[in-house]
Amino acid sequence: MKHTISALVENKFGVLAHVAGLFSARGFNIDSLAVGKTDDPEISRMTIVVDADDLTLEQVKKQLNKLINIISVHDITKRNFIDRELMLIKVSINKKNRQQVLEIAETLEAKTVHVGMKTISLQIVGSLDKIETAIKLLKPFGIKEVVRTGRIAMAEE
Amino acid sequence: MKHTISALVENKFGVLAHVAGLFSARGFNIDSLAVGKTDDPEISRMTIVVDADDLTLEQVKKQLNKLINIISVHDITKRNFIDRELMLIKVSINKKNRQQVLEIAETLEAKTVHVGMKTISLQIVGSLDKIETAIKLLKPFGIKEVVRTGRIAMAEE
Repeated sequence: MKHTISALVENKFGVLAHVAGLFSARGFNIDSLAVGKTDDPEISRMTIVVDADDLTLEQVKKQLNKLINIISVHDITKRNFIDRELMLIKVSINKKNRQQVLEIAETLEAKTVHVGMKTISLQIVGSLDKIETAIKLLKPFGIKEVVRTGRIAMAEE
Repeated sequence: MKHTISALVENKFGVLAHVAGLFSARGFNIDSLAVGKTDDPEISRMTIVVDADDLTLEQVKKQLNKLINIISVHDITKRNFIDRELMLIKVSINKKNRQQVLEIAETLEAKTVHVGMKTISLQIVGSLDKIETAIKLLKPFGIKEVVRTGRIAMAEE
């Protein structure tokens, strides 16, 4: 089952390596990980999406909570939360298909961030589903590059 | 100096821990890291922002290139690239300041993703500068939570 873990950590070198190491030692594959500063530059928040059974994940959570540089760890999978992901995607474009690509972009509420001679680069924000749909819809035109942030999530109050 | 590293990696457990470990062994602090799948589910792209001098970073790049699960590593700091970051931010709100918060949100092209009794949650996409500005503008109202993806970047052709 996919779990979304949200952790507040001290912004010190080694914390990321330590957390990633704990997951990989258990053989978990991390689907996505995003780490960035909070409004306090000394503190970062990590959002990790991982495929794991409940019991093993509970053990990893306990180990994480013991680490000195980790302030808090929450599994927000079963809580109401808002999840979003950002993707930059570069698609091949030509005179024939340009209009079609632009129409798909509009449906996806995508924003054009760069236009080249043979490509268009789009910025798309949405849930995991929307991002996956965008990739499927744009694949037939030829995807040159995809960069995704991985999911971030915030619990509703 | 801040460097932005973009790496294509095999989507296997341990790769992330290995990469994070290489940086932390050198004492580098990672400003942000985002890793997500590409259009090929076997391959992920990492975008890492790190504060480091050119020489040391060159050595780390060489070591990364030697790792078997790493397909390519590029320092795109000096190339033309589009960079974006996504932030979810929850701000305190009351009858008095509601209009003011909404006006700031509009200026930032923010999207409202949740409204609670005493808070509003916004989704903001932009360059590092824009994200930092958003935090500064919203701080006086009381920030309850910030979740950032970290920067992702794509080279212009």
